[in-house]
Amino acid sequence: MSAREEEKPNERPGKRQKVGLYTLHYWDGIPGRGEYIRLVFEYTGTPYDEVKDNSTLMARITNPEIVGIPPNLWPPALELANGKWLSQTGVIINYLSPKLGLAGYAKDDTDLDEEEKIFLGAKNAQLVLTVLDMAVELHGVHHPVSVNLYYEDQKAEALRSAEQFRASRLPKFFQYFQTVLETNPANKGGKGPFLLSSLTTAADLALFHNMTGVLHAFPRRVKSIQESGKYELVFKLYERVQNEPKIAEYMESKRRQDFGMFGIFRHYPELDNEE
Amino acid sequence: MSAREEEKPNERPGKRQKVGLYTLHYWDGIPGRGEYIRLVFEYTGTPYDEVKDNSTLMARITNPEIVGIPPNLWPPALELANGKWLSQTGVIINYLSPKLGLAGYAKDDTDLDEEEKIFLGAKNAQLVLTVLDMAVELHGVHHPVSVNLYYEDQKAEALRSAEQFRASRLPKFFQYFQTVLETNPANKGGKGPFLLSSLTTAADLALFHNMTGVLHAFPRRVKSIQESGKYELVFKLYERVQNEPKIAEYMESKRRQDFGMFGIFRHYPELDNEE
Repeated sequence: MSAREEEKPNERPGKRQKVGLYTLHYWDGIPGRGEYIRLVFEYTGTPYDEVKDNSTLMARITNPEIVGIPPNLWPPALELANGKWLSQTGVIINYLSPKLGLAGYAKDDTDLDEEEKIFLGAKNAQLVLTVLDMAVELHGVHHPVSVNLYYEDQKAEALRSAEQFRASRLPKFFQYFQTVLETNPANKGGKGPFLLSSLTTAADLALFHNMTGVLHAFPRRVKSIQESGKYELVFKLYERVQNEPKIAEYMESKRRQDFGMFGIFRHYPELDNEE
Repeated sequence: MSAREEEKPNERPGKRQKVGLYTLHYWDGIPGRGEYIRLVFEYTGTPYDEVKDNSTLMARITNPEIVGIPPNLWPPALELANGKWLSQTGVIINYLSPKLGLAGYAKDDTDLDEEEKIFLGAKNAQLVLTVLDMAVELHGVHHPVSVNLYYEDQKAEALRSAEQFRASRLPKFFQYFQTVLETNPANKGGKGPFLLSSLTTAADLALFHNMTGVLHAFPRRVKSIQESGKYELVFKLYERVQNEPKIAEYMESKRRQDFGMFGIFRHYPELDNEE
């Protein structure tokens, strides 16, 4: 185990000194939706704190006396240095992206005018929300009837849902991102591939997280999708991001949590059509 | 029927002259997700065109040769005056909101600094995405197994899903928006109510659309929710937006389409626990 791996995550119990401008509030124990935000910080080397306090997280973020106005319904939530809070994964990512150079142009870019930057930011946001739509569908596969019920209480419905997901919905998302990558002119020279422009965006990082998630949850189906050879650029993007030095370091660190049996990305062998 | 009602919608078949800077591409026949964007244009009196061409809409918006890069997966999509396209309902709304004064501050505001405007825009986006999450759950009630199957082929699962939705998820969303409205200091003096700041935002308009949708889809359950008296401000916001002159005029016009039996907001009496 390297020194890096022994480091503690930037977790802040109670009143410990903050390391940066941003504090992420999310469940403890899974990468989950918090991971889309962690990857933004990790890739850009932005210091951040985390509060992983499952016992009081929901009470805290729905109590307007504590979190300000308007309150935040679900984690993840982002606490800013000025004490204000944001929630909704997609909103947090899109708030951070231009500030951290992940919206399709460099932080210090002076070539683009304001309107071009706004449009690129919106395109990044569009791709991020499509990645998050894929995650919502993934969650719906093991919770088709209601988020209020256990998997075991909706397993028959989940088996039906998984069949459709494997056959049609999962390839649809792969096809979409493959088309985006094929039609991005910046990818012609063999650089990248990038979803948008010729820089890593928050959308690339989000798709990387979904890839780690589907490889965990549906290893059998994703293997057959890969072997079809139809979506090579999607797998190439996954490998590229995985090998970015800051991401590679993060994935080996203690800060990266394993997938588990709650949240979006769960491995139920029967849903992946395994015996 | 008034002269207004006889007017044709701003529909543009083929090459007809555009009336404004924006063209909305969406299915014909239902308000659907396109309505969140129409309400933004209608409330602000912004001229817009519509292309409602179901037969070629999907081919068009997934063909990168026609729509530019990256392609747009699903309608609604917004075509800009410069020929560029955006998709994802939440992204389109949040792209338009600051430009049209619907992000919690006036278009010509000079009191707030740039960072405060960005934060208000993000808060508006947060609320818009939460309204859209509610719409996704509404759709999931009648399509719990897969969007690929007809309602009739997943009716048993839908009945289970609807039970959970009526009992717990629908009141949860009402409670959240009621809390947001209660804790907005701008609502103290009896003005509004507004979800954010003391101005109508895109979030208010989006919640208004969901209210018209749940009143159509779950009239029995929404009546009992209203009679509980717990969510008065949510119903008050609905009435306020409904009575805004431009919205009232729009709702009476030919441009407003009726809900139907496709899309998010469908009335299946059995899902509303009717005999």
